[in-house]
Amino acid sequence: MTITITAFAASPDRGRGQARDMRLRWALEEVGQPYEVRLVSFAEMKEPAHLALQPFGQIPTFEEGDVALFESAAITLHIAERWPGLLPEDPAARARAITWMFAAIGTVEQPIVEAENARFQESDKLWHRERQPLIDGRIAARLRQLSARLGEAEWLDGAFSAGDLVMIGVLRRIGGSDLLEAHPNLAAYVARGEARPAFRRAYEAQAEVFRNLQRT
Amino acid sequence: MTITITAFAASPDRGRGQARDMRLRWALEEVGQPYEVRLVSFAEMKEPAHLALQPFGQIPTFEEGDVALFESAAITLHIAERWPGLLPEDPAARARAITWMFAAIGTVEQPIVEAENARFQESDKLWHRERQPLIDGRIAARLRQLSARLGEAEWLDGAFSAGDLVMIGVLRRIGGSDLLEAHPNLAAYVARGEARPAFRRAYEAQAEVFRNLQRT
Repeated sequence: MTITITAFAASPDRGRGQARDMRLRWALEEVGQPYEVRLVSFAEMKEPAHLALQPFGQIPTFEEGDVALFESAAITLHIAERWPGLLPEDPAARARAITWMFAAIGTVEQPIVEAENARFQESDKLWHRERQPLIDGRIAARLRQLSARLGEAEWLDGAFSAGDLVMIGVLRRIGGSDLLEAHPNLAAYVARGEARPAFRRAYEAQAEVFRNLQRT
Repeated sequence: MTITITAFAASPDRGRGQARDMRLRWALEEVGQPYEVRLVSFAEMKEPAHLALQPFGQIPTFEEGDVALFESAAITLHIAERWPGLLPEDPAARARAITWMFAAIGTVEQPIVEAENARFQESDKLWHRERQPLIDGRIAARLRQLSARLGEAEWLDGAFSAGDLVMIGVLRRIGGSDLLEAHPNLAAYVARGEARPAFRRAYEAQAEVFRNLQRT
């Protein structure tokens, strides 16, 4: 059965792999599954056909036969359950890997999205600059805790897992920032993820969408 | 094997079931599993023993034999996978239920936590009142989309599932607000969740912790 995911026709990040289809592409490359991509415009994302697949009008989505899913982390978990390579076999270790997926989305990404909301929707406000350190402080607190837990380990819990994939996808949103660089072990952790062949292939595939857009 | 979860020794919500141990209690009641509760103080949550279980210094945690987990939604999923009653058997429907768990945490709860951060950490700022409508707008946008998807259905996707349990736990954080009451179908959805016998038992158990605290 063909796997089809959706991605931005015109990604706001200009092909730097920050759109959340990147996490699916990466997961599918890790487990060696080919996939097709349907590009959707911002207008199409708000139309009934797309809302039937993704009620919040976002990308990505995932379709394979009678399976239709949304939310990048949920799809990553589905991919990790369907094909080997992204979850340990030991039940306790598997549950911990899934825990890291939820921690990435619910605990670490929460203040990072808050900072993005401020940048995109509040940067014209007089108080934007005064408020920024408050948001940065929330991100910094989570990074300190994550850095302390990771320590000198290569990945969060044993072998590379879907938990690392989602966490690195989240941390890449602040890649290169002083907040992340303050923790060399976290910066190195992100770099280790980005160095994986599956990541490179996924990154190239989404970058190609942007290059094609520029050519047209 | 005994299941042990952690909860606030002194919950900031004064026993109204907003602390995230409520979701675990509810899930365990739905699947009919007894559990023990270890109460932790705010000071204990920041100590190495608790951080080893929960690297972000929060509650709840879950321990059963060699399984030790954190993040309420991850634990809810673990409970739903371990005992029947919270996930459909059909693989496609099961994946959709898990999708709703991630949607609850990553998409719907994100702006609700942003509003809580503003209330607890920014309410002394001169710009707090000016900013509030911006956050409310983000919450309202998600609720409109969720309301449109739910429509007149009883639950998000067929029978009650772990996806509903987590989503209702998220929506209860703004229970009674104008934002939620603007969507009678969402308010009724939350009320249906709260009317479940398993919810009532879980609610009573966590309320009892607060009543005991007042007696001491």
